[in-house]
Amino acid sequence: MLKVGIYGASGYTGQELLRLLLRHPRAEVVALTSRQHKGTPVHHIYPVFRGLTDLRYIDASAEDVADLADFVFLAVPHGEAMEVAPFFLEAGKKVVDLSADFRLRDHALYEKWYGKHKAPELLGESVYGLPELYLEEIKRARLVANPGCYPTSVILGLAPLLKGGLIDGDTVIADSKSGVSGAGRDTKVGSLFCEVNEGFKPYNVFKHRHGPEMEQELGALAGRPISLSFTPHLLPLDRGILSSVYATLYDATTASDLLDLYLDFYEGEKFVRVCREGSYPDVAAVRGSNYCDIGITVDGRLRRVVVFSAIDNLFKGASGQAVQNMNLMCGFREDEGIDLVPLFP
Amino acid sequence: MLKVGIYGASGYTGQELLRLLLRHPRAEVVALTSRQHKGTPVHHIYPVFRGLTDLRYIDASAEDVADLADFVFLAVPHGEAMEVAPFFLEAGKKVVDLSADFRLRDHALYEKWYGKHKAPELLGESVYGLPELYLEEIKRARLVANPGCYPTSVILGLAPLLKGGLIDGDTVIADSKSGVSGAGRDTKVGSLFCEVNEGFKPYNVFKHRHGPEMEQELGALAGRPISLSFTPHLLPLDRGILSSVYATLYDATTASDLLDLYLDFYEGEKFVRVCREGSYPDVAAVRGSNYCDIGITVDGRLRRVVVFSAIDNLFKGASGQAVQNMNLMCGFREDEGIDLVPLFP
Amino acid sequence: MLKVGIYGASGYTGQELLRLLLRHPRAEVVALTSRQHKGTPVHHIYPVFRGLTDLRYIDASAEDVADLADFVFLAVPHGEAMEVAPFFLEAGKKVVDLSADFRLRDHALYEKWYGKHKAPELLGESVYGLPELYLEEIKRARLVANPGCYPTSVILGLAPLLKGGLIDGDTVIADSKSGVSGAGRDTKVGSLFCEVNEGFKPYNVFKHRHGPEMEQELGALAGRPISLSFTPHLLPLDRGILSSVYATLYDATTASDLLDLYLDFYEGEKFVRVCREGSYPDVAAVRGSNYCDIGITVDGRLRRVVVFSAIDNLFKGASGQAVQNMNLMCGFREDEGIDLVPLFP
Amino acid sequence: MLKVGIYGASGYTGQELLRLLLRHPRAEVVALTSRQHKGTPVHHIYPVFRGLTDLRYIDASAEDVADLADFVFLAVPHGEAMEVAPFFLEAGKKVVDLSADFRLRDHALYEKWYGKHKAPELLGESVYGLPELYLEEIKRARLVANPGCYPTSVILGLAPLLKGGLIDGDTVIADSKSGVSGAGRDTKVGSLFCEVNEGFKPYNVFKHRHGPEMEQELGALAGRPISLSFTPHLLPLDRGILSSVYATLYDATTASDLLDLYLDFYEGEKFVRVCREGSYPDVAAVRGSNYCDIGITVDGRLRRVVVFSAIDNLFKGASGQAVQNMNLMCGFREDEGIDLVPLFP
Repeated sequence: MLKVGIYGASGYTGQELLRLLLRHPRAEVVALTSRQHKGTPVHHIYPVFRGLTDLRYIDASAEDVADLADFVFLAVPHGEAMEVAPFFLEAGKKVVDLSADFRLRDHALYEKWYGKHKAPELLGESVYGLPELYLEEIKRARLVANPGCYPTSVILGLAPLLKGGLIDGDTVIADSKSGVSGAGRDTKVGSLFCEVNEGFKPYNVFKHRHGPEMEQELGALAGRPISLSFTPHLLPLDRGILSSVYATLYDATTASDLLDLYLDFYEGEKFVRVCREGSYPDVAAVRGSNYCDIGITVDGRLRRVVVFSAIDNLFKGASGQAVQNMNLMCGFREDEGIDLVPLFP
Repeated sequence: MLKVGIYGASGYTGQELLRLLLRHPRAEVVALTSRQHKGTPVHHIYPVFRGLTDLRYIDASAEDVADLADFVFLAVPHGEAMEVAPFFLEAGKKVVDLSADFRLRDHALYEKWYGKHKAPELLGESVYGLPELYLEEIKRARLVANPGCYPTSVILGLAPLLKGGLIDGDTVIADSKSGVSGAGRDTKVGSLFCEVNEGFKPYNVFKHRHGPEMEQELGALAGRPISLSFTPHLLPLDRGILSSVYATLYDATTASDLLDLYLDFYEGEKFVRVCREGSYPDVAAVRGSNYCDIGITVDGRLRRVVVFSAIDNLFKGASGQAVQNMNLMCGFREDEGIDLVPLFP
Repeated sequence: MLKVGIYGASGYTGQELLRLLLRHPRAEVVALTSRQHKGTPVHHIYPVFRGLTDLRYIDASAEDVADLADFVFLAVPHGEAMEVAPFFLEAGKKVVDLSADFRLRDHALYEKWYGKHKAPELLGESVYGLPELYLEEIKRARLVANPGCYPTSVILGLAPLLKGGLIDGDTVIADSKSGVSGAGRDTKVGSLFCEVNEGFKPYNVFKHRHGPEMEQELGALAGRPISLSFTPHLLPLDRGILSSVYATLYDATTASDLLDLYLDFYEGEKFVRVCREGSYPDVAAVRGSNYCDIGITVDGRLRRVVVFSAIDNLFKGASGQAVQNMNLMCGFREDEGIDLVPLFP
Repeated sequence: MLKVGIYGASGYTGQELLRLLLRHPRAEVVALTSRQHKGTPVHHIYPVFRGLTDLRYIDASAEDVADLADFVFLAVPHGEAMEVAPFFLEAGKKVVDLSADFRLRDHALYEKWYGKHKAPELLGESVYGLPELYLEEIKRARLVANPGCYPTSVILGLAPLLKGGLIDGDTVIADSKSGVSGAGRDTKVGSLFCEVNEGFKPYNVFKHRHGPEMEQELGALAGRPISLSFTPHLLPLDRGILSSVYATLYDATTASDLLDLYLDFYEGEKFVRVCREGSYPDVAAVRGSNYCDIGITVDGRLRRVVVFSAIDNLFKGASGQAVQNMNLMCGFREDEGIDLVPLFP
């Protein structure tokens, strides 16, 4: 059994990692850290774990975690991950970082959006952990930067079009909608039930930090810079992201032809499900699973394509994909522990 | 007191009309029709009316309604409104039709999207009931076609840009999201709580019937044809539409300049509220009110503007706007009976 | 116009007061206090007020409020209301306190549940602001203690039975369920969307502070002490309380007879609506209104009665009832400004 | 692999059975029936199954199912299960019936609540499928009557108290609250999103069909008749039942002593989790799992105990428990395929 530590386990992505790893046949969680909850059994903080584990949070000492674990998930906020990642790597551990610290390959771009980087020497080594695009690199990686939730949905949605050179890179608009768990478990007014419930609104319009992350990866797929207009909105539900992505096609094409292209591109990819023509994704159909559902259609009058891409932001958009990366990095079967059927209703 | 009949009062728009008219200082509901609920007190069907009215549904006879009422709201499905509208007009009544029957001025376009029209002679007379655009026409009208909910949000959102000739009409995308009450009270699987709750999905992509209605009005504003890509989505909440509308500006402009344009355009319009720079609409901030909140920003890199427009689909998107039209047609103050403060939370 | 101050206006009850008073025909809000938001326009904090008022929060100085207002609502937490109430009364203002500070007539009981009382001399003077029970006292009062939300539902539900001496006071169980707005706008983990949504649980079982408040009033109605088992639960919705109250009847009675008793007891009370036999309250039918809906039935085998009582916790359970009290204290019509029809759906 | 048929697979319990069995290591679904959806792939009706199975619904012929399957779940409404159960048993199949047809041992009681019974000879043979109480009988059974969702929560909650003879059987009140999926996927107004969302109400008060089922089982535990006042309420959420059960204790006891009793009673039962003192169940902590969480406290003044019992109504309250029964009837490990960790948030 692989001994796993979750560094920063008090938030939703930390608990989702624990939830998945408790049933993983080849891994075992041996350390959970939390400054705030140090010494408290995890099931006091998350009653879902009642009777399932006696694990208690330990303080956030990287040394203690390194003593116990061979594989480490970093589920702390950006800025904190870069402080401990070098230590874990030097200690011979493999690391998946769920923060943004190692996603941007361009040091200057990172500092523009996030501030000072303390381990820039790792930016060249870290692998962007989207297995459907970087399978081989992930298998060989010591440090994987787990993608953001919005980027996972948008990049998987656009990859076949960009790789195929079918769309004009200056026409791409991602109108994305995310459930509230994406904001984490921090206590802020904007995440209160009564502020969100029965509401819907955009936020961080054209200035969300996931914008540059997407442009980096979309540009890599296209082989040239892509300027993306990215508009996140807040959905009154727990889990789920749906991105509606618009772009102008270079040539007249039908939805049917594009669906063939997608089926081809994602052939053999267990976690991408292409919807049949006329059928579109619903976040309710991927809840509690690692699937990314993709639907597509075309407005023939304007050569405009729209791609809909749905994921569970805590699962494929965070912890499930992190376990998928762990599986690949450790030589396990890619879907080990994460091949759950979505929960509906 | 104006004597008002609601023809087709068993659905949500019918009950919302009754709700508003029960507190209207110059109107009184004298007839509610419903085939299904004939003879039943309305408070048995909608317990909100417990103790507030003894009105019972009567059968759907236009003659009976005409005997009782001087003003008639048609809240029946499209296809049925056109069957009774001519009768009411001949009987000297004023009519606001909440269905789609008299919204499209082009007879052929109507029949393409909805089927045979039985009163095409009225298509030229009926006035599109968006008071912020057609104030004078509405004041003089006998027959007003109340706008669709999506069109209300999109047209109000785009009017200043189109009227000002600022955007390229071939680049307009409306990514709209609506609460479930927009689907009415019909019993279909897709409107069940468990099918919608914790879900989010697009539907009728690029082929929703509100598309041609919007293109008609947007084209009229622009003075030339507009091709709109319109994508409706279903939000897991009761009331509210938010439309995120994208377009390319002909010239580089700032959000600040555009906000000035909007403030100008809507000066004196009580029911349009332009959000200050950096602030955006939330459907929760217009719930239970006749307001349309509009926010705007610009992606300078691409000369792309995005307009966010939020309404309560049952209020400004249907029954509230219908009462606003009634007020104008009857010479009442425009906001009589509908100047409610939104309900939050 | 009555000049009104809202002392502590940053929470949900404060904003609900403002919402109602903005449309009150005989009152005008002249002061809103908030330490945290001092200087900020209220519509920046609550966008529902966009375009409706230019009021800004002022700092929480009782002197400043007394200079501006003739009537003061205290919407601060318990412990703070008692610090300023004496000042306002001495300055000749009338006061409705929405906190718990003046609800308990027994000084010792207050201190047992809430801690030190700083103005115990007012405990004898303050009137419990449930107009359906204390109409005359409220009309003459300088200081009204606005009831808690749970107590409003439970006391109105039980009053006819207790006053009529029909039930055994040791058998009373109140199983109550409240929406999340009852917890206020404080940022705590337990009020986060993801902690509450799709969940349901009891809390503060048998030890909620509203217990002694209810026992005081129920005992006064019965003319002898009542021991109540009170179990609050948290509902995943914004507004609404439903209390299901069980008790054993001294004598065999039918639901029909009890409904007659209720109709009698509440005759002329505009804001209590007794449901016809076989019909029960739904919090959705009172949302956004001052109504208390009451339904009743009997389990004949066991002489057990159950009363269901539904209110909107922010309206009849807090701010609406506070305005009702203001109306009575100032000689206005009891329903002025609060006779809104519930919002559905 | 056990070949399993789901007779009546178009509803939520049917799809939940399929969801669980798709990942069951020792069973395989070979037949799904649905008159309405005959010939349609199940993933067209339930998009969660997209890419996971090519199964199509077949028509509801018992013969066809018997040809394919060795084990049959009946997930049709009551009245229909009794029509096919005898056939499947004669054909040598084992059967778990999720309807009410074989739950009541008293033929006359069944006919009073449900109407004519067509296979009364099986009422004596069928076993009530609550494994925590009837383990050995289930292991030997050919026909198991899967318990109702409310009864599962109430019976597990009360069993230790009744078995121990600690409470007065005439004082038992079950105030239960269920999520909407309990109403199934039938299209009725009362299950529409807008009718349920943001609402909460009682229904079928003192006359729900689960009442006699509970009285049968509670009486069996107590060894004498129990008269239960049972009040179901409808929660605005997808999955979950919380029952708050009140009773009077014969003797003064503490919560702590009772918790010890419960821990004893349920020792070794994997799917019952007793909450530590002062902690109570939340339906959100059992969602998507087979757990029943139980919390307990005492109102010492009145010797009144309250037990809170939470389950997922589709899982432990229906399909999960059905699979648990299948496991026992087939000699599999009791938790095979159903040991999922709850999904939160």
